Amino acid sequence: MQDRVREILSWYASDNPGTRSNIARLLNHGRLGGTGRLVILPVDQGFEHGPARSFAPNPAGYDPRYHFDLALAAGCNAYAAPLGFIEAGAADFAGEIPLILKLNNSDSLTGGSDPCPAITGSVAEALRLGCSAVGFTIYPASAARNTMYQEIKEITEEAKRKGLAVVVWSYPRGSGLSKEGETAIDVVAYAAQIACQLGAHIVKVKPPTAHIEQAAAKKVYEKERIPVGTLAERVRHVVQSAFDGRRIVIFSGGEAKETGAIFDEVRAIRDGGGFGSIIGRNSFQRPKREAVEFLGQVMDIYAGKTK
Amino acid sequence: MQDRVREILSWYASDNPGTRSNIARLLNHGRLGGTGRLVILPVDQGFEHGPARSFAPNPAGYDPRYHFDLALAAGCNAYAAPLGFIEAGAADFAGEIPLILKLNNSDSLTGGSDPCPAITGSVAEALRLGCSAVGFTIYPASAARNTMYQEIKEITEEAKRKGLAVVVWSYPRGSGLSKEGETAIDVVAYAAQIACQLGAHIVKVKPPTAHIEQAAAKKVYEKERIPVGTLAERVRHVVQSAFDGRRIVIFSGGEAKETGAIFDEVRAIRDGGGFGSIIGRNSFQRPKREAVEFLGQVMDIYAGKTK
Amino acid sequence: MQDRVREILSWYASDNPGTRSNIARLLNHGRLGGTGRLVILPVDQGFEHGPARSFAPNPAGYDPRYHFDLALAAGCNAYAAPLGFIEAGAADFAGEIPLILKLNNSDSLTGGSDPCPAITGSVAEALRLGCSAVGFTIYPASAARNTMYQEIKEITEEAKRKGLAVVVWSYPRGSGLSKEGETAIDVVAYAAQIACQLGAHIVKVKPPTAHIEQAAAKKVYEKERIPVGTLAERVRHVVQSAFDGRRIVIFSGGEAKETGAIFDEVRAIRDGGGFGSIIGRNSFQRPKREAVEFLGQVMDIYAGKTK
Amino acid sequence: MQDRVREILSWYASDNPGTRSNIARLLNHGRLGGTGRLVILPVDQGFEHGPARSFAPNPAGYDPRYHFDLALAAGCNAYAAPLGFIEAGAADFAGEIPLILKLNNSDSLTGGSDPCPAITGSVAEALRLGCSAVGFTIYPASAARNTMYQEIKEITEEAKRKGLAVVVWSYPRGSGLSKEGETAIDVVAYAAQIACQLGAHIVKVKPPTAHIEQAAAKKVYEKERIPVGTLAERVRHVVQSAFDGRRIVIFSGGEAKETGAIFDEVRAIRDGGGFGSIIGRNSFQRPKREAVEFLGQVMDIYAGKTK
Amino acid sequence: MQDRVREILSWYASDNPGTRSNIARLLNHGRLGGTGRLVILPVDQGFEHGPARSFAPNPAGYDPRYHFDLALAAGCNAYAAPLGFIEAGAADFAGEIPLILKLNNSDSLTGGSDPCPAITGSVAEALRLGCSAVGFTIYPASAARNTMYQEIKEITEEAKRKGLAVVVWSYPRGSGLSKEGETAIDVVAYAAQIACQLGAHIVKVKPPTAHIEQAAAKKVYEKERIPVGTLAERVRHVVQSAFDGRRIVIFSGGEAKETGAIFDEVRAIRDGGGFGSIIGRNSFQRPKREAVEFLGQVMDIYAGKTK
Repeated sequence: MQDRVREILSWYASDNPGTRSNIARLLNHGRLGGTGRLVILPVDQGFEHGPARSFAPNPAGYDPRYHFDLALAAGCNAYAAPLGFIEAGAADFAGEIPLILKLNNSDSLTGGSDPCPAITGSVAEALRLGCSAVGFTIYPASAARNTMYQEIKEITEEAKRKGLAVVVWSYPRGSGLSKEGETAIDVVAYAAQIACQLGAHIVKVKPPTAHIEQAAAKKVYEKERIPVGTLAERVRHVVQSAFDGRRIVIFSGGEAKETGAIFDEVRAIRDGGGFGSIIGRNSFQRPKREAVEFLGQVMDIYAGKTK
Repeated sequence: MQDRVREILSWYASDNPGTRSNIARLLNHGRLGGTGRLVILPVDQGFEHGPARSFAPNPAGYDPRYHFDLALAAGCNAYAAPLGFIEAGAADFAGEIPLILKLNNSDSLTGGSDPCPAITGSVAEALRLGCSAVGFTIYPASAARNTMYQEIKEITEEAKRKGLAVVVWSYPRGSGLSKEGETAIDVVAYAAQIACQLGAHIVKVKPPTAHIEQAAAKKVYEKERIPVGTLAERVRHVVQSAFDGRRIVIFSGGEAKETGAIFDEVRAIRDGGGFGSIIGRNSFQRPKREAVEFLGQVMDIYAGKTK
Repeated sequence: MQDRVREILSWYASDNPGTRSNIARLLNHGRLGGTGRLVILPVDQGFEHGPARSFAPNPAGYDPRYHFDLALAAGCNAYAAPLGFIEAGAADFAGEIPLILKLNNSDSLTGGSDPCPAITGSVAEALRLGCSAVGFTIYPASAARNTMYQEIKEITEEAKRKGLAVVVWSYPRGSGLSKEGETAIDVVAYAAQIACQLGAHIVKVKPPTAHIEQAAAKKVYEKERIPVGTLAERVRHVVQSAFDGRRIVIFSGGEAKETGAIFDEVRAIRDGGGFGSIIGRNSFQRPKREAVEFLGQVMDIYAGKTK
Repeated sequence: MQDRVREILSWYASDNPGTRSNIARLLNHGRLGGTGRLVILPVDQGFEHGPARSFAPNPAGYDPRYHFDLALAAGCNAYAAPLGFIEAGAADFAGEIPLILKLNNSDSLTGGSDPCPAITGSVAEALRLGCSAVGFTIYPASAARNTMYQEIKEITEEAKRKGLAVVVWSYPRGSGLSKEGETAIDVVAYAAQIACQLGAHIVKVKPPTAHIEQAAAKKVYEKERIPVGTLAERVRHVVQSAFDGRRIVIFSGGEAKETGAIFDEVRAIRDGGGFGSIIGRNSFQRPKREAVEFLGQVMDIYAGKTK
Repeated sequence: MQDRVREILSWYASDNPGTRSNIARLLNHGRLGGTGRLVILPVDQGFEHGPARSFAPNPAGYDPRYHFDLALAAGCNAYAAPLGFIEAGAADFAGEIPLILKLNNSDSLTGGSDPCPAITGSVAEALRLGCSAVGFTIYPASAARNTMYQEIKEITEEAKRKGLAVVVWSYPRGSGLSKEGETAIDVVAYAAQIACQLGAHIVKVKPPTAHIEQAAAKKVYEKERIPVGTLAERVRHVVQSAFDGRRIVIFSGGEAKETGAIFDEVRAIRDGGGFGSIIGRNSFQRPKREAVEFLGQVMDIYAGKTK
């Protein structure tokens, strides 16, 4: 095993060998295997945004097997999706790529200012389907956050007992936060800290902006002169906020955007010490060949092969 | 076993042999057995609309045994009903026709804009009564949708562990949707996707209209020029939205209507790649002989014997 | 065993021998034993209306043993009461008369337009106390109906597994219904249907009036010319609505009233095919000798000894 | 065993020997042992009203051991308190006096018109600490009464299975009742009935006034000329309302008051057939010697040694 | 073992040897080991206030191992933190210092006047991680207090069965209390009493002010002339309110402040009979060497080495 993977595993010394083996599986699979960096393919948009908005731009994606194939072809570290999508390919692709079962989901047919996803899977289902990890979304700043924190507490405890890894999507959102505040540096750093304190092995946040949302935090950022001017600096601060870099923090790609902008973002994540990216729509909405090439370039940036 | 059934079963490769056997039972029973098409008789209207509104037009239907008889005589693939109706015939008709126990129900004595049915049965009861599947209604777009999603999650997990199939009635309805939106093509396709992601083996939706409800979806339908002009096109889009046709999607008949209109609808479902129909009031409110003949014609259309 | 009892038991063929034995016990006990008719003594008014309103007219009734004695002396099929009253006599009267443990109750110290009783007993307690059945009240039309339906679902499932019979008091009441609507023929028939669909073996409803509450139902009653002019016709319609007479439906006596009126009501129930009565205040608020004679006359009407 | 105790135990014939042994323990301990009368020392005021309001008048009472000592010295039948107070003396005083673990409690730091105490103990804790009984407060007339009724239902069922006795504090209170109504004779009698129907072995209520709160009850009290003019008459009516005297009903002392008034109240309880008193603040807020003498006089009245 | 420790353990005679061993571990570890006094390092501010506000003043604190090190170097009795922080060091520091797993937490991204923390850990997790105790925050005076009381009831019962100690942070806060009232002497004394009655072994409160919040309490404080003029007097009253000093009561340091003021506070706690301090931000936000020296001085005051 590569030294870097061995080092990362040492941060999870309280976990049992089963869980650590699954963290190792995620770190060792694909083109970035062994580097300590990860690129994960997530496809929960069919549930979250609806099928046409997700798959019509590249209709091959209606078929759940497509995403297993894409993740394999591109050399991703893992593929993450809700129950139905995982079930529809887990048997055919058994053992070919680490899987992350997303255990909660929201749809876009109703809303509200304080989101709370529905539980749609379980640790038992993840084990039945041969997954290496479970995924869970929390919305810190939602009035329903206690529900989510207590759900992830139950799930985390069971997952760790049964040898799975836990990936937490931590997205601050809710009535107490401005829209801009959802990606504010203080808020994103706080969201990473919360996920770590809740026991996540891997934390996914959004790339933060330089905005500072909370007055009490602003005073500290100014007094301590915490550098948050560049994205790399902000990533560094988020990684520091995730137990001083001793938890794996990855960043989402967000909405589909221009390729150059994505590469710039990836470079900043890499330079700030981020562990990788989780890229959905920017991958599976492109034609497959193009997506594989695009993901390859992202991985090359993380691997340091590309500047 | 017919190749088409074998092919359909291959889509459920993550399920255990018990569940796959029960899916096979549903596909192999009756006049359409082996074709991959289904016509199911559902009788939950006594609970949902009241006894007189349901059975007074053909009073034989007050007797729960009538519907078992009707489903058998017509050669339906299965008979679906709530606990009481199934209990009142399960012993007499044991082993004669696949049964689907509806596990949740609403009555019409109270209402509200965000429906949430009551749980009225269980997987254990379905097993006790010899059923092949459980049925469950979700109302995406209801403010209470999380309750339903989490209930079906529990039920699905238990049913799959115990070898039953899961049929989900997915009816978007709730305060966030216009009345027209309940059958809008984008919404129905989304409802099918959600049911599949929640782990349903068989999904039942309403025949969609060409209306598009959500602005974010409308942009995509227009940009990608998704054809939704004819019912057959819309059915095709819904089937595509159900894991690219790798989940069984059937369509409800809706309110009693003129027979010719129903046959046209069935033809469109068939031509669009739909897997069949679930026809309640249009069947059991007719005199038995007439109902058997009517259902026979529907089946002939699906079987391709009638144009 | 009498043929009529054997016939009735055949309707419950899905139940295990334990439950069917207990239904038989209810049908075979007392003066009406073997006739397929039942008169049950229920005494939950101490809880529902308070002790003085219930027992002051005949203070012997403060003593819980009185009601066991009364039911025995009058030859009732069974005695139904809440936990405390059953406990206070179950040991002394063990094996002397079938008991029905009422598992939920409301008091009159607080109210609200949408009633929901408290669970006050359990199947385990019914077994401990030697009961033949459990009783449960649902209020269809209450905004809290889902709570009740799900409670009775749990109870029914457990009771059937453990060999008990289930008696459901089905009283439509709630903010969506007019006061008159609570006993409207369409609503009472619907309430009987719901109780049967929920799995009740025995259903208790109120004698319906000729009023029709719901517009959608009214159209059907008129179109199909369902006869509801006399009480006997209405009883017949309710019995039909209870699985075409294949579930035992009994009727409550309601508030204390003039004896002649009660006998008329009983005749109508008998003539309409109702299975019997459950008579509380009209029994236990009279002096014992008078009550025994009164109940004897009621039973003679049901037995056909009196016109 | 004294005949009176044997007689009282006969009322609980449905209970197992374990529970009956514990009822016997309560009846046989202390100066009133064997008389069928009880005086119990309850000390939950530290939780309910705060420490200074409870113990500052006699600071020895801050020490939890003090109350065990006081109950023993005065010859009380039992000592009742919340978890913390029982835990802090149960080992030192093991086997010296019957203990009643109060399983729910409210504090005075927040309020509201419809009280609902928090569950603060369990049957398992009562067994661990060597208690003879569990205590539980219900507030009939609170909008939250169903919660309390269902909690006591669970507790009662478990306690009876595990051989403990159940003492219910039944205090009508809530938005549907006037302040005066909380101690109205109709309401207190009703509260006693409810506690008995819920399965309590021992019921504690407040001494009722002659006020009648509910209109429907008033008609009956007047029509049946129920005597409620004197406290003894009212106590007799409450005892009658508790299963015609076949359940143990005791009365609280209420707020600290002049000693003569208390003795008058005790005489009325005795003469009306009440089973005893539960006296907290009037006992433990006096200096110990004075409290012992005071409780001795109360017991002498119950024992008939004092007029 | 020191006599003082033996004496303190005697107060917990109802607990099993496992729990008493863990209380002993807390009392015997560190510079104050054996004195009956405790200084505990708590670090939950990353969760409660966010990472930058907590750790930016001394960035070494971002690393979870830092706090284990600091607690060890300073000779604290124990280290308390949420799940994530404990997990991130428990393996490396196994057996080196008693650990307290904080089982509930709030973040600062949403608020409300009636706080209720989320459950974020469990007794099972505390055992897995080798902790000696669990910690839990209650907010008496919050409208959500029943939720917290019932959660701590469950946790306490399980912890005691499995040999752990229970530390309760008791912070009155909620819509029924003025801001000043949160640290009022009557309210803090009441909060200590509630925690003890709920079964806490160790109670943590804030240093109280001389303000009296509740009118009913004020009358008693005045009538009984309870001395609350100095902090030492108030601490004495709080300790008395915690079962007359038979439960361990410690005091929080509150917001970072001038060192001299802290020492004065510590002297008053010592002189009033308080058992020690729990000091977070005032410790870990200083450079390590300075923090160790500061904590050493605090301990010397408690040990009586410094006046």
